[in-house]
Amino acid sequence: MPAPPTPTPAATHSKVDLLIIGAGPAGLMAANWAVSLGCRSVRVVDKRNTKIFTGQADGLQCRTLEVLHSFGMAQDIVRQSNHMLEVCFWNPVDGTLRRTGRIPDTIPGISRWQQVVLHQGRIERAFLDRIHAQSHGEVQVERAKLPERLDVDTDLVESTHPDVYPVRVQVRQLSEDEATPSQMGKSTPNGLFRSALAPDDTPELLSSSSSSVSGTKAGAVGSRQVIHAKYVIGCDGAHSWTRKQMGIDMAGEQTDYIWGVLDAVPVTDFPDIRMRCAIHSANDGSVMIIPREDGLVRFYIQISSTSDGAADAATKVDRHNITWQRILKAAQTIIKPYRLEISERDLHWWTAYQIGQRVASGFSLHDRVFIAGDACHTHSPKAGQGMNVSMMDTYNLVWKVAKVLQRQSPRSILPTYQAERRRVAQELIAFDHRFSRLFSGKPQAAEDAAREAGVDLAEFRNVFAKGNRFASGTAVEYGPSLLVGRGGDATELGDGTDVVGPGALSRPELSAEGCGESRIVVGQRLNTAQVVCVADARPWQLVDWLPSDGRWRLLLFCGNLVDAAQRPRIEAFARYLETQLLPRYTPARHDVDSVIDCLTISSTPRTACELSDYPAILHPLTTKWHRPGSASAAAGDVGEARAKSQDYWKIFCDDESYHAGHGRAYEKYGIDAQRGAVVVARPDGYVSLLVALDDVDRIDAFFDKCMLPAEMHLPFASRDKPSGAVDGAETKGVPPVPSKEAGEVAQAL
Amino acid sequence: MPAPPTPTPAATHSKVDLLIIGAGPAGLMAANWAVSLGCRSVRVVDKRNTKIFTGQADGLQCRTLEVLHSFGMAQDIVRQSNHMLEVCFWNPVDGTLRRTGRIPDTIPGISRWQQVVLHQGRIERAFLDRIHAQSHGEVQVERAKLPERLDVDTDLVESTHPDVYPVRVQVRQLSEDEATPSQMGKSTPNGLFRSALAPDDTPELLSSSSSSVSGTKAGAVGSRQVIHAKYVIGCDGAHSWTRKQMGIDMAGEQTDYIWGVLDAVPVTDFPDIRMRCAIHSANDGSVMIIPREDGLVRFYIQISSTSDGAADAATKVDRHNITWQRILKAAQTIIKPYRLEISERDLHWWTAYQIGQRVASGFSLHDRVFIAGDACHTHSPKAGQGMNVSMMDTYNLVWKVAKVLQRQSPRSILPTYQAERRRVAQELIAFDHRFSRLFSGKPQAAEDAAREAGVDLAEFRNVFAKGNRFASGTAVEYGPSLLVGRGGDATELGDGTDVVGPGALSRPELSAEGCGESRIVVGQRLNTAQVVCVADARPWQLVDWLPSDGRWRLLLFCGNLVDAAQRPRIEAFARYLETQLLPRYTPARHDVDSVIDCLTISSTPRTACELSDYPAILHPLTTKWHRPGSASAAAGDVGEARAKSQDYWKIFCDDESYHAGHGRAYEKYGIDAQRGAVVVARPDGYVSLLVALDDVDRIDAFFDKCMLPAEMHLPFASRDKPSGAVDGAETKGVPPVPSKEAGEVAQAL
Repeated sequence: MPAPPTPTPAATHSKVDLLIIGAGPAGLMAANWAVSLGCRSVRVVDKRNTKIFTGQADGLQCRTLEVLHSFGMAQDIVRQSNHMLEVCFWNPVDGTLRRTGRIPDTIPGISRWQQVVLHQGRIERAFLDRIHAQSHGEVQVERAKLPERLDVDTDLVESTHPDVYPVRVQVRQLSEDEATPSQMGKSTPNGLFRSALAPDDTPELLSSSSSSVSGTKAGAVGSRQVIHAKYVIGCDGAHSWTRKQMGIDMAGEQTDYIWGVLDAVPVTDFPDIRMRCAIHSANDGSVMIIPREDGLVRFYIQISSTSDGAADAATKVDRHNITWQRILKAAQTIIKPYRLEISERDLHWWTAYQIGQRVASGFSLHDRVFIAGDACHTHSPKAGQGMNVSMMDTYNLVWKVAKVLQRQSPRSILPTYQAERRRVAQELIAFDHRFSRLFSGKPQAAEDAAREAGVDLAEFRNVFAKGNRFASGTAVEYGPSLLVGRGGDATELGDGTDVVGPGALSRPELSAEGCGESRIVVGQRLNTAQVVCVADARPWQLVDWLPSDGRWRLLLFCGNLVDAAQRPRIEAFARYLETQLLPRYTPARHDVDSVIDCLTISSTPRTACELSDYPAILHPLTTKWHRPGSASAAAGDVGEARAKSQDYWKIFCDDESYHAGHGRAYEKYGIDAQRGAVVVARPDGYVSLLVALDDVDRIDAFFDKCMLPAEMHLPFASRDKPSGAVDGAETKGVPPVPSKEAGEVAQAL
Repeated sequence: MPAPPTPTPAATHSKVDLLIIGAGPAGLMAANWAVSLGCRSVRVVDKRNTKIFTGQADGLQCRTLEVLHSFGMAQDIVRQSNHMLEVCFWNPVDGTLRRTGRIPDTIPGISRWQQVVLHQGRIERAFLDRIHAQSHGEVQVERAKLPERLDVDTDLVESTHPDVYPVRVQVRQLSEDEATPSQMGKSTPNGLFRSALAPDDTPELLSSSSSSVSGTKAGAVGSRQVIHAKYVIGCDGAHSWTRKQMGIDMAGEQTDYIWGVLDAVPVTDFPDIRMRCAIHSANDGSVMIIPREDGLVRFYIQISSTSDGAADAATKVDRHNITWQRILKAAQTIIKPYRLEISERDLHWWTAYQIGQRVASGFSLHDRVFIAGDACHTHSPKAGQGMNVSMMDTYNLVWKVAKVLQRQSPRSILPTYQAERRRVAQELIAFDHRFSRLFSGKPQAAEDAAREAGVDLAEFRNVFAKGNRFASGTAVEYGPSLLVGRGGDATELGDGTDVVGPGALSRPELSAEGCGESRIVVGQRLNTAQVVCVADARPWQLVDWLPSDGRWRLLLFCGNLVDAAQRPRIEAFARYLETQLLPRYTPARHDVDSVIDCLTISSTPRTACELSDYPAILHPLTTKWHRPGSASAAAGDVGEARAKSQDYWKIFCDDESYHAGHGRAYEKYGIDAQRGAVVVARPDGYVSLLVALDDVDRIDAFFDKCMLPAEMHLPFASRDKPSGAVDGAETKGVPPVPSKEAGEVAQAL
């Protein structure tokens, strides 16, 4: 119900460290990561008034589950999910459809997790619940808020003064109607309104801005807020408004393949309906089957291709001509001679899309405004990459922003976001290009062997198997930079951004080549191995002790403590930690493990020595479990008035356990069991350094570039209460918003 | 603020299928089980106004975790818990304290779970959350409600007419003061108010009944309700009011050992503070260490014994003389030369108790009123049995009550509760008798070897190791009865109660002797083994498919489907299921697996045949995932208007998995891989029958005794809305409560 036009009222103003635009998986990961790091001055705005409950993305890859686990979220999600174990290939053989092969869906050993599927709504729900719990309800998604103006004060972008907020974003409160996606009222939810086949409604909403002001109170429909932010992340999807304000283009192409998607509980006699299947028919296209939770199955169904002339590559198909019945009919034809029936009642969601493969030309503006997720890359959904890569984008970014906000690190670490993630996006598009063309093509076996467009089914299967490693997310390898002390050319191994760091500090030979899927590769994430806690004999996956809490991790594979030659090396390293490295970066009166957390993995059998035989700094006294005293203390400052006891969960051994076998961690990591090695892992679990125990100069050289000394560190800002007055009376001290039109902002920056 | 005395107002009346008195672990397990079975007409009353947040019981044994897992609760609880892996023995050697041995805390292979510790409050919280979720908020604990009168109409106890409520319980709403345990206001919570050293306050509360009426509204302080129940379970603790109304005694004895308990975060250099430890000092008594969650440690500390003359076995110690400082001092002396310090701030809870070992003379009155948990058995807490055995009591009972309420089973199954659980209680007391005397005694090594009271430390360790099997709860073995088709004398192998059933129907030799910890023993719970789902290649623990949902399970170890001799046997068994067993007990229009759920475990490799090669009844068509039509249907009646599809999660094979190895289930269960076997498991997971595929007459004979045909089954009653009027105006049809005094009821019954 738009009210009659009135003059735009003055906006309220407020300050925030981090503003996130868009509450999809990328945005929620960003918010979750920020609150996990202790940042409370964070806001999330979304133009929609509702979250997605069915359909959308659904695959969770190994690396995503590893990251979710680092937030304590994976077990619940995996429990609700459907697990995908095997891929079956079905092809035309002797005039009928036959299973021509099987491969494991996840390469064994690649991760402790295997690929699962669960609908996006439940994953978003898990994030919302955790953000609420972690922030004690302080951080919530603010819905029906449309950003309409973005402004960066370029003079201030390099300042790390805690009172400097160089980015301004004006948002407007939408009405219920404006914030409701148009499909929501229909009986079977479908995703056409978000598909590439549907137009973006943001320009329409923006143009209605002057006519929809219906109140003057803060939060009332049409009311405006100006958010003064230190950093902004646009997670606002393929049509990203943020990206447009930044003046960034998408480069790539649109394919001519159109696919339909059905989420339903089918009635069928197809034998592999609970397997992931790639089905190529002789002449009628392809189906991919993704079995899901609660008896559901997702079908990706090819409904047109160049060869049948139904669609023109350059034109968008009229979405009103696509119905779920038409998609189902295509599937029924492809899957013959098997029966496939779906009643409307058991159809949970459907959509159709045309594959576009594009990457944004940049991911950042002055390293103050970033884009992530679908705003940076679009591609086909069938390999289950979109939601995963999107979440991994903000997982890569937010800790870096937090370290800069806390002045633990210089701003020079921020360009690594684009270097690392745009490179991944480029690789993803290359993968998807190959994968989706193969999948959409016709099987060669059924066609003239000479035909150029034909797909060799052996090649398809081969690409599929290789693709599984890429698709798992575990193969991601970041190039050299301030945050990755490895060899190689930083621009060549990234996206071209200059992120040159301290050079080839690592010694890759310390993790033996050929040791297997858990080899430690600098620039890759650390795979896990089972170790046994010395103090309580409990077996653990090592990565259980690398939660996403913002700390750097120093993994001391100390070798054999009871070896006479090794013991002095261990003691020397412990002295270095205690007297040099840790004091340099740990503020006074904070627990010694609060910035860099050192975990020891010993090759000495558990009962061959006592915990007290290990240097004290390796199982330090901390206040972790002790109740605070009455002395007031700043954030992170543990004060004096609290007892301290040993941290019993820092020393592990590579030994037999009572109930879970032997982890053989040294063997899996390819580390020498006598002499050991030191691994430095970033707060996001990627390996920065692999050096010997004597290489303390290399460790110094690494941290010297990417960290600032303890004296400079700052606590996070507390949450700002937005000024309540609409008339601007309470906004003194906050500069007024320039009166440029939203459309002009990008040019002006 | 008690109001001036007024005449007792008339009580409100309401009906309920199951009334549970007491909301501790036994009561909450009962309520949880009832709602899981679909029973909504269930109420839980508790005289306290608060739940326990610290202290109390904390150990969760293997079998308890198995049961919690069958409700989907174990993973969250285990994740929060401290895991106990090893027991260390410390003894005086050469004038100092030394570690003299280590054993695994849980015998490897005995269960998929190992013993963990977590405080009772969190476990109760998990139950409360699940009860709320399962019952959609309909079932909640009604606090500050004191039962004051119990009455059984003996003429009606054998009637299974759905409108017959033979038990009446009158409850009174307590004031805030009355319902608050007296210790709650103190700075460090302690458990003396619940300890055997403290008097019971129930008589005091009962005597105040006439003076505390302060309102006339239902729910107002002092108001009374009469609850007309079909069944009542008293889970009201060691001082059980219910037990007293039933006229049941506790038989057993009080020991002269007094123990203190501290829950604290200690500062110590004792090496094994994160292990479970049994520490015997030379002359100063014993300490048991139980490491807990959140850095906490529980200390059980001997503070007196006969030999030091501090306490007289016949007299209760004055609890005002026991302080936490005195307990700590005793611990510090025992643990010398190690340092042990606890600041008051880090002391979370403490108590003291005197060991009493008693079992109730009966567990039931007319099989209408039952007692469970501490109301039936009291003993020392150090073996971590109390909470576990208590929960297992109601886990044994409630499904039987539910089956009778639904008229799926005759009332003759109910006496098995006392036969099975009183027997366990007797065994528990015998175990505890031996265990606690050994633990409290002085170590022989440090004493005159001839001294009779001395403890042989080798014997102690031996008893401890053997005790671990008992204490795990996995060794519980129920005698022959209507519910356990095994050999032996029903009264000898139970507690003496007559529960004679159909006799020795099982063939124990079908599970080979010596096959290991997973051998199938009729009367014991089924251990788990990994199997692989044929339809989706996912590895599962078999017991994951035996959730606590009230269904009987028929496990068809079908042997080798592709063996020419075996296939006809499998087909014959499938025909028997489809045409005889399942129709006999499954109401028309209910899913075929709704009463008896048949799971197939095949020794045929997964890819050696298709799912469709198995007889259709083994992967039946069900409505499980399909949305209901518009046709109205009674509870459980799936109606006609819903699609059906195959249940893909009923056929498993004993084969290699991609990521979790080979389960070797046939080997673990000792079942012949060609010819197989059939296992019938009760709704609580205990094995009722082990027979061959041809033994359908034995299966018939078993179910014939303990089940009623489908035509007699009833849906559960819906929840009764208690009549709102206090003056009795709306209670017509409900008989008035006799005006006997509460104390006289037991005699009158």
